Amino acid sequence: MTETSAFRTDRYELTMVDAAIHSGTAHRECMFEAFARRLPAGRRYGIVAGTGRLLELIRDFRFTDAELSWLRNNEVVRSPTLDWLANYSFQGNIWGYQEGEAYFPGSPLLVVEGTFAEAVILETLILSVLNYDTSVASAAARMVSVSLGRPIAEMGSRRTSEYGAVAAARAAYIAGFSATSNLEAGRTWGIPTMGTAAHSFTLLHDSEETAFRAQVDSFGAHTTLLVDTYDIESGIDMAVKVAGVGLGSIRIDSGDLPTVVAAARRQLDELGAVNTTITVTSDLDEYSIAALSGSPVDAFGVGTSVVTGSGSPAAGMVYKLVAHTDDTGAWIPVAKTSTAKASVGGRKDAVRRLDASGIAHEEIVLLGDGPAGLPEDSGTSGLNRALLVPFINQGAIDERYLGAAGTQLARTHHESVMRELPLEAFRLGRGEPVIPTTYR
Amino acid sequence: MTETSAFRTDRYELTMVDAAIHSGTAHRECMFEAFARRLPAGRRYGIVAGTGRLLELIRDFRFTDAELSWLRNNEVVRSPTLDWLANYSFQGNIWGYQEGEAYFPGSPLLVVEGTFAEAVILETLILSVLNYDTSVASAAARMVSVSLGRPIAEMGSRRTSEYGAVAAARAAYIAGFSATSNLEAGRTWGIPTMGTAAHSFTLLHDSEETAFRAQVDSFGAHTTLLVDTYDIESGIDMAVKVAGVGLGSIRIDSGDLPTVVAAARRQLDELGAVNTTITVTSDLDEYSIAALSGSPVDAFGVGTSVVTGSGSPAAGMVYKLVAHTDDTGAWIPVAKTSTAKASVGGRKDAVRRLDASGIAHEEIVLLGDGPAGLPEDSGTSGLNRALLVPFINQGAIDERYLGAAGTQLARTHHESVMRELPLEAFRLGRGEPVIPTTYR
Repeated sequence: MTETSAFRTDRYELTMVDAAIHSGTAHRECMFEAFARRLPAGRRYGIVAGTGRLLELIRDFRFTDAELSWLRNNEVVRSPTLDWLANYSFQGNIWGYQEGEAYFPGSPLLVVEGTFAEAVILETLILSVLNYDTSVASAAARMVSVSLGRPIAEMGSRRTSEYGAVAAARAAYIAGFSATSNLEAGRTWGIPTMGTAAHSFTLLHDSEETAFRAQVDSFGAHTTLLVDTYDIESGIDMAVKVAGVGLGSIRIDSGDLPTVVAAARRQLDELGAVNTTITVTSDLDEYSIAALSGSPVDAFGVGTSVVTGSGSPAAGMVYKLVAHTDDTGAWIPVAKTSTAKASVGGRKDAVRRLDASGIAHEEIVLLGDGPAGLPEDSGTSGLNRALLVPFINQGAIDERYLGAAGTQLARTHHESVMRELPLEAFRLGRGEPVIPTTYR
Repeated sequence: MTETSAFRTDRYELTMVDAAIHSGTAHRECMFEAFARRLPAGRRYGIVAGTGRLLELIRDFRFTDAELSWLRNNEVVRSPTLDWLANYSFQGNIWGYQEGEAYFPGSPLLVVEGTFAEAVILETLILSVLNYDTSVASAAARMVSVSLGRPIAEMGSRRTSEYGAVAAARAAYIAGFSATSNLEAGRTWGIPTMGTAAHSFTLLHDSEETAFRAQVDSFGAHTTLLVDTYDIESGIDMAVKVAGVGLGSIRIDSGDLPTVVAAARRQLDELGAVNTTITVTSDLDEYSIAALSGSPVDAFGVGTSVVTGSGSPAAGMVYKLVAHTDDTGAWIPVAKTSTAKASVGGRKDAVRRLDASGIAHEEIVLLGDGPAGLPEDSGTSGLNRALLVPFINQGAIDERYLGAAGTQLARTHHESVMRELPLEAFRLGRGEPVIPTTYR
């Protein structure tokens, strides 16, 4: 697999470019929009993620000789298209919801302006990144909201594809997770990494005692010991015997957690290990975390459910042409009209209307001039908030959104966004979007 | 993101190696096993996928200076471990179910023999690949089985992470899909690619007629025209008007498909386009494909449901230490025993018992000597079939399983495996595994 992102693309993006170059429409100015027709089933809000790493992938979206000869040999496109692809780099404009932002049905999450050819060719990549990362962040935010401030580590690398794992760690971190098990996510995105040992480490040694001693010898008493390989009660006794009352943490990965955790806390306290914390990591999701709200758990580790979007592994984002210029240069709004999948055409801007206490109560999508075309009366003054920020201006990427710094920025932005949501947003049960989306 | 696969790994794999080097247990010979405790909810069988590309990732699992300095700077492991990692390449043995094979709860899908350190460090990568690819292949096989021989193209790149998309295309192809939209999957794995145009191409042009004409001018009448941008009936009229009765195919991406498809077929026939085929692509899954069994659909395109495992986005595979040698070199079977997550320790082999007509009726997991240690009376003669094949022998990979050739081999193997399954395997409703797994 090569470094360019250009082949992580559906074939039809290129055949459309080829036919449009042939028909003379490839260079019409267009506006595409990524949005979700609905939230994942029963959710009250979604969280946008992926934008920062998407910008890097758009920067690296280039056709090298290797791609061009493959396309030539496989007769995917013709010579004029190959020439155009050889010179491709996105020179248009992209606005979008800031990463970490809440979104609702119809929110114009990413707005791409450029020629048809240069904008359509990014479709698959944009949707792959936004659909996956947003599904993870949307699930992660719900877990964080029921964790009552206790840290949650993302440990799901093994439950999603090996590159998806890195994206998932990043999306979960943006949505408030505290750390990840994934080393590449630590290196690439600056996310704190964590982890000590698995059951295999205990099983490898001749006894649980030998295993614990090996771990404490290596990492000190402040390490986390996994106590449920054989019997949890004996495991806790042994952990404190080996590490002393200064033991950092115990990890429990099985059992009926409310019962087991309560017993573990009593046992630790009786042993004098009153500052030893309890970490739990057993197939948790937002519901089981909520069910532990009254339990003396100090930290959570979540795997499968967060990296698979907790029942909604794709966010349902689509990328639609909403307007293009005609031969006179005038903008024409367009939309598919045949069925229930119809969408709203035209250039758009978006604003979140807040009440006097700063709580969101309406998502307003403004039809008209497009991004930064907010009319005077759109209510962006005072407590109301414009949602589209510029990411790419005539091909130039705003670098604040990239890399580890961009990831931190998204996490910080997410924290402030969550404080704006009405309390009903945090109900776990199925329901409607917590604020309505209106078109004006 | 760098080319080595070594950082697509959980931190604790490295800290375990570090502590085991320190305690002198790192070099104990171990046997790890990847298996699933259960099939995805209600499924009758699962399909193994990912093995071929996993072998390439294991080959590329090396720690370069970049990884080593990051680990040093972040104090993840100590000097002796850094030295060991610098020289790492897997030198053990790996056996497993051939890619494309059916599996059942407890089937030992991948058996890894090596020192603790060299085998444990591959855990995260092995599980990422097997969990994701197997979940896709398991869903894909069910779709193929209800398609009644009509081709299904994988078009879900935009509904999963951008690298996961390439793996998904490959897994679906192994499980019998005919093609993919994903260019990288075409290039890397030799899978046929397909695709012509999206709604945006029609919307870009001043009329549906201009758009169709542009496409036919470029690709000839044998192309596939997407007819549901405005009104399907008018779209079909226009498609045949533009391309003539030699039009290759129409694609329908919305509407109540049984009704719409029947009407489309009548209309095409009345227009004389009797050889024009009908392709449908609207949020299909195994259930909606089955519901079209009596409809004149010629080809399917499937996206979200196949790349997200149709409700089971991770296959639930785990990687467990099942045996290790002690200081005398004797093998000790081990297993976690504390809870419902208990597993069966010990070296294993596996055989599928077939009846006289070649139909599978039992998955037998043999405890004892391990792979290729089948006893005389295990029934591997005649119609019964040994399931574990050697993939890596003392670090040397069997190259037949790699690349595009390995992908084709897996697809061919899968076809023969499906003929062995009892008919009840193909019921879509929820049920138990179609054959029992027994331990001997």
